[in-house]
Amino acid sequence: MSGAIDGSSMYVDIGTALAPGADPGISEEELDALEERVAAAHERIAAGIRDDEFGYAALSLPDRVDPDALREAVEPVADAEFVLTVGIGGSALGARTITSGIVPDRADRHVVLDNVDPEHVDRTVDRLPLAETAVNVVSKSGTTAETLANFLVVREAMDDAGVDWTERTIATTGSAGPLRALADEHDLPTRPVPEGVPGRFAALSAVGLVPAAILDGDIEGVLAGARAARESLAPSLFECPAYAYGATAYALEERGATVNAFMPYAESLEPFAEWFAQLWAESLGKAGRGQTPARALGVTDQHSQLQLYRAGPADKQITIVDADDRDGPTVPVAEHEELDYLGNTRLADLLAAERDATVASLAEAGQPTVRVGVDRLDAHALGELLYSMEAATILVGELADIETFTQPAVEWGKRAARALLAGEETAETATIEDLPDLRVE
Amino acid sequence: MSGAIDGSSMYVDIGTALAPGADPGISEEELDALEERVAAAHERIAAGIRDDEFGYAALSLPDRVDPDALREAVEPVADAEFVLTVGIGGSALGARTITSGIVPDRADRHVVLDNVDPEHVDRTVDRLPLAETAVNVVSKSGTTAETLANFLVVREAMDDAGVDWTERTIATTGSAGPLRALADEHDLPTRPVPEGVPGRFAALSAVGLVPAAILDGDIEGVLAGARAARESLAPSLFECPAYAYGATAYALEERGATVNAFMPYAESLEPFAEWFAQLWAESLGKAGRGQTPARALGVTDQHSQLQLYRAGPADKQITIVDADDRDGPTVPVAEHEELDYLGNTRLADLLAAERDATVASLAEAGQPTVRVGVDRLDAHALGELLYSMEAATILVGELADIETFTQPAVEWGKRAARALLAGEETAETATIEDLPDLRVE
Repeated sequence: MSGAIDGSSMYVDIGTALAPGADPGISEEELDALEERVAAAHERIAAGIRDDEFGYAALSLPDRVDPDALREAVEPVADAEFVLTVGIGGSALGARTITSGIVPDRADRHVVLDNVDPEHVDRTVDRLPLAETAVNVVSKSGTTAETLANFLVVREAMDDAGVDWTERTIATTGSAGPLRALADEHDLPTRPVPEGVPGRFAALSAVGLVPAAILDGDIEGVLAGARAARESLAPSLFECPAYAYGATAYALEERGATVNAFMPYAESLEPFAEWFAQLWAESLGKAGRGQTPARALGVTDQHSQLQLYRAGPADKQITIVDADDRDGPTVPVAEHEELDYLGNTRLADLLAAERDATVASLAEAGQPTVRVGVDRLDAHALGELLYSMEAATILVGELADIETFTQPAVEWGKRAARALLAGEETAETATIEDLPDLRVE
Repeated sequence: MSGAIDGSSMYVDIGTALAPGADPGISEEELDALEERVAAAHERIAAGIRDDEFGYAALSLPDRVDPDALREAVEPVADAEFVLTVGIGGSALGARTITSGIVPDRADRHVVLDNVDPEHVDRTVDRLPLAETAVNVVSKSGTTAETLANFLVVREAMDDAGVDWTERTIATTGSAGPLRALADEHDLPTRPVPEGVPGRFAALSAVGLVPAAILDGDIEGVLAGARAARESLAPSLFECPAYAYGATAYALEERGATVNAFMPYAESLEPFAEWFAQLWAESLGKAGRGQTPARALGVTDQHSQLQLYRAGPADKQITIVDADDRDGPTVPVAEHEELDYLGNTRLADLLAAERDATVASLAEAGQPTVRVGVDRLDAHALGELLYSMEAATILVGELADIETFTQPAVEWGKRAARALLAGEETAETATIEDLPDLRVE
């Protein structure tokens, strides 16, 4: 295992995505034909990294982020029992993914307010021991309505509880905007949101790492794993796991795989699937294309979604994410013969058998799967997974000629919501007024 | 509000699914043309209910389930601080949906082991105060590998902790099988799994209600809401919210809406979306058809999936689930002008504005939405929602001529996993051996 500390342990297996067995499926010849485009895209990506271009800059983060500076910044709140992240989308999903992945035994001490559900906000604030809670507020623009609204509610609750919120809060934000102003005014510890990196690509910066740092997670390991994945970028889909994933997904989408069912076989990676879903959907859902991510979880969703994946429309790629080595209990022998086959079985072996059976079951029905594997579920592996999926997403954007780093389609709704709240009459609010209804009750 | 206790408050608004605005979309004329088929399907469903046919029997549950008997059965463990449900698929999702929906302030006292992730099982068992935990083990056949394996692990952990597990366990299972034998042998309190009802349709029975009963939730309210929804079944999609939902989804799928993005605007309904995803996928994912449920959450996923929903392929129906009346905090006025528009705004109003903006934003881009609404998030409303979505699913099955109540495609994988564990060589294990691989590392 000497290579595992710095080397890459991640692999991508696309064997079960290959035609003629799979439909939609791709042939090795078709992949060979993609190689030239992958190589060109790699050159484009490498240049983007080198020139620090908008978006591509995300792939430099593991070299730039200084974990010591992060640890120092969180020092004032590092004694906290709980971390309350107030953020939404890219300002929340990466952080939750990292605590869940690297400190799974303490992940329930990381509470995330990434919604403005009023009763849920109330319950969350009521339940937390605010004097022992570090508040981690994250907004790149410093104006995100949901985040600022929630933060103002949390701040007032701390005031009401007699807790000095300025002593318990760390802000991660850009260089301007009301959150920056507020942080300056109250002398809060802050971390910058990296320049030139869209929120959903910012997990490998303070945006994703602060809560794990507070909970004393191995953030250095995450960054080392990401660097290993960076090292593995190469101008061939057959030599780079990230590009193997991206090129295969692109080719499968071209063949009709409009759904990407993303299914980790690990509870601690469930937030990783949510993080991936944003990365993939918001980066690639453009110009009438983009796979729809369907978040799933093995083995649980074998009892929920597998019927559809196997017997429904041939419009899916199923992505299985898992680790080779798992720990955990062995099933005791029971007093009933029918359960003998379970006795003395490690749960890890049961999980692996079910996973292998599921892949084969899908293959037997002609549904393509792609396996993403790591040695074990640790910080290094999580860093590899995060970085590789970012690189895969960027590759698909290049191949599909999409603007990977923007999200223009969400602006309409933001304007509309803001106008509604401000009581203004705009083109957007007129659309809302005029919506057709046909109500059945 | 006098009618709301027993009457139905649920509505379905299909206005924003209508063509020509929406693509895929349907016209009112097309819906009119569906009416006759809906009426015929309703007759079929009503006959199935009357004759207690397999599957259709689910729609009688609210009349049959006796909440007093349930409360009596859980009496021995009703003092528990935590409930640990050990089940998977239909034996877990309904139960989690109901505790989350009707006792959201105590929902974190309901812990669900619905996966055999070994480290997660270890963490869960380690963390629970087993002496104050009621174990709720649920398996219709009594042989479900994941459930029995987990239960044997939990039982041993209780033994090891010096807790008499026979005093802390309630079993919900069929009339035969190893779990039934074990319950008889150890004189456990048991509740029967209803006859003739597939697991995913069993939420409105002991299968879904036991944990809520232990946590003193209003299970009577859930059943009353379900009865109100039953009363609302009528031979017209324009007069029955459940059928309006089902017929619209069917028609949209026929027009190319292969994805159903199911998006409650309430944290407490997130498990409801998971429950729906199983119900929809496992019932209707057959013979090459079936919408893929994409679980989402408002407003959170506006910052994750909306870009794709708005600008991606025109292959989606977006289902918005929400409640008219919400409680919760008001945003305090902040010291920055840019945040003035948020000051003194109720979070509930912010949520509603964002929801309305999202529906309009999708409509403006031609993406069809269907609204499912209730007055407020209470037990009655949850009962209506559960029952109505079951009826909607059954209606789609009739319209599509699908065997709604079976799940044949999952059997292959179950056989394969079992053979792997038993070390047998079968056709299934041979398929696993022979899977192609193309590993990039």
